[in-house]
Amino acid sequence: MDINFEQNLINLRSQAPLVQNITNFVVMNFTANALLAAGASPVMAHAAEEVEDMVAIAGALVVNIGTLSPPWVAGMKLAMKRAAELNKPIVLDPVGAGATPYRNAVLNELLTIASPTIIRGNASEIMALAGTNIRTKGVDSTAVSLDSLEAATALSLKYGSVVSVSGATDLIVSGQKIAYVENGVPLMTRITGMGCSASAIAGAFVAIQSNPFEAAIFAAVMMGVCGEMAFQKTQLPGSFQIAFLDALAEITPQNLQVSSRVK
Amino acid sequence: MDINFEQNLINLRSQAPLVQNITNFVVMNFTANALLAAGASPVMAHAAEEVEDMVAIAGALVVNIGTLSPPWVAGMKLAMKRAAELNKPIVLDPVGAGATPYRNAVLNELLTIASPTIIRGNASEIMALAGTNIRTKGVDSTAVSLDSLEAATALSLKYGSVVSVSGATDLIVSGQKIAYVENGVPLMTRITGMGCSASAIAGAFVAIQSNPFEAAIFAAVMMGVCGEMAFQKTQLPGSFQIAFLDALAEITPQNLQVSSRVK
Amino acid sequence: MDINFEQNLINLRSQAPLVQNITNFVVMNFTANALLAAGASPVMAHAAEEVEDMVAIAGALVVNIGTLSPPWVAGMKLAMKRAAELNKPIVLDPVGAGATPYRNAVLNELLTIASPTIIRGNASEIMALAGTNIRTKGVDSTAVSLDSLEAATALSLKYGSVVSVSGATDLIVSGQKIAYVENGVPLMTRITGMGCSASAIAGAFVAIQSNPFEAAIFAAVMMGVCGEMAFQKTQLPGSFQIAFLDALAEITPQNLQVSSRVK
Repeated sequence: MDINFEQNLINLRSQAPLVQNITNFVVMNFTANALLAAGASPVMAHAAEEVEDMVAIAGALVVNIGTLSPPWVAGMKLAMKRAAELNKPIVLDPVGAGATPYRNAVLNELLTIASPTIIRGNASEIMALAGTNIRTKGVDSTAVSLDSLEAATALSLKYGSVVSVSGATDLIVSGQKIAYVENGVPLMTRITGMGCSASAIAGAFVAIQSNPFEAAIFAAVMMGVCGEMAFQKTQLPGSFQIAFLDALAEITPQNLQVSSRVK
Repeated sequence: MDINFEQNLINLRSQAPLVQNITNFVVMNFTANALLAAGASPVMAHAAEEVEDMVAIAGALVVNIGTLSPPWVAGMKLAMKRAAELNKPIVLDPVGAGATPYRNAVLNELLTIASPTIIRGNASEIMALAGTNIRTKGVDSTAVSLDSLEAATALSLKYGSVVSVSGATDLIVSGQKIAYVENGVPLMTRITGMGCSASAIAGAFVAIQSNPFEAAIFAAVMMGVCGEMAFQKTQLPGSFQIAFLDALAEITPQNLQVSSRVK
Repeated sequence: MDINFEQNLINLRSQAPLVQNITNFVVMNFTANALLAAGASPVMAHAAEEVEDMVAIAGALVVNIGTLSPPWVAGMKLAMKRAAELNKPIVLDPVGAGATPYRNAVLNELLTIASPTIIRGNASEIMALAGTNIRTKGVDSTAVSLDSLEAATALSLKYGSVVSVSGATDLIVSGQKIAYVENGVPLMTRITGMGCSASAIAGAFVAIQSNPFEAAIFAAVMMGVCGEMAFQKTQLPGSFQIAFLDALAEITPQNLQVSSRVK
């Protein structure tokens, strides 16, 4: 696949897009630090009283339902509606889709308000969102990404979204187009917020370029290569989390281009 | 004391129990990472709309009142009620018990809904919960764990709970049975969320074995030994927090057995 | 400027003041760990049901509007009112002032309830708060600290507050008195929560001494010198965050005195 990773990363760092996040309590700090390390400017606001105004000054909106509750859902809906009106890209992370009826109902509501530019989740979540019969286990995937190809394609066609499925091989689907990203290391599943940060990084890239398929691929490659860089420093999860943030800042456009494994 | 630490840790890692946490904002990331590092699978959900469903798929429920407010208390109550109905183990962490009348009132309410399988706190919290006249200082203990033996025993008898008191020596009480765990280092009190993580780890162990007294001892030993391992790498709190997470993943069943100091 | 940094740090560590924080979700863990590392005792409580009681046992109140919503604003108001009644020092961190009308309205409300002892923000926030016409970009500053001298002075005179503006040079203003702190490194702007922690550390110092101008200077110097110490260990943001927490614990009173650069 012919993607100019170098130029995208240079642009991200020079433009430092403001990414508005309505995300979960568990990952907020890590996600904000990941965006800062990569070169973006994060803002986290969720109140119905201000999300529309924050969306208006942001380059992209990231919505993550990891620790949802009604006041937050109200903020998500207003923010998505406003983003759609302003043609701002939206990334939706359906954390724990399938785990509870409430999550499923909220996701259905959100998807009637606006079609996400990118939907990013693990295989269980994507399959649950597409209505596939799948047993989920909380927020961790019980399926491998390639199993979700049919579900991802169906979702992509239904909502006109790019669907990005994280796993040993990341699967990125845009209608009939498919890309496979083979970067990353298994240890990434042992640190909370890696998937959420992948969604946020996708938000950063989709804020600076008009092709969401490329933005999603780019984010998957950036996450995966930085995971590989961190893994060369440490194989333990606490220090890996830190080394991963370091890698997001340390990676050069050339590193990224050379290390990308996309088919 | 004759506890098979090795087998318990092997079981934890092979079974990777889902632990449902309703916990405080300060420690969510650290707690989730601690559970993942130890080998469990964390989920954090608090909304009244979904906690019962999440409890139903989890192996244990951990309730921590560190940053409580009415909507969260509503979620805690529903979750504890459902856990009791389904015979799922409950760990209660009474963070800041005694610091405000609201905390005391909420704890009393929660304890009328279900008897926790394990109550884990510091000495001030356990003494406050038992009605001992104790001045607390926010969320840090003003008493040493051994001072709380009478309070811990009273609580254990009243609720049929195992009571685990963290301190220089951890005290674990189940009715008339008492265990003393002498693992750990003082630096652990200088990192936020260590106690909260001890409660979560207790949740992981009580999810995979039927003896809550052993599960509480096991969690205290696991925390303490990992603290000792981390302290060998660093004596400063930022890097200690990271080294501690690394230790939770790195520790072998043999390490744990050999290093345990339980009386 | 003749400030006894050594004695202040010795006092902080020996008195370990309880600092009550109503702060944002993104930085809670980092802020709590920063306070613990520095030698203070943090508590985080926000519910209207208990904030007044928590303020009553605390040495200072820190209010940070980073992820505000109506229930939290209710807690902030009660806490500030109670702190004023009890003559407890208040630090206000107007995160994202100017970014949305809601933030501006809330800040105005808070400032009618009590005059903060210290207001600490970046230049954009301070200028927005003073009514200067400034375009903000989410929560990151678009202006340099020295540009905000007029705004800081106006705010200081209006509310009788010490105003501390973080930037390449920190500006601390108390009426007509001005101090410039030249400690710190640019990498500090790439870690989320550095400014929020500066406010919390200011809360710790103002809890133990009666001169808020000195307390604000002291906090700025402590943050800056610890940033410099961390930067000697690493130039990457993930590990810098950790090294910074280490530095807060490791710094000696002598280090601080010798490294301070205040004019």
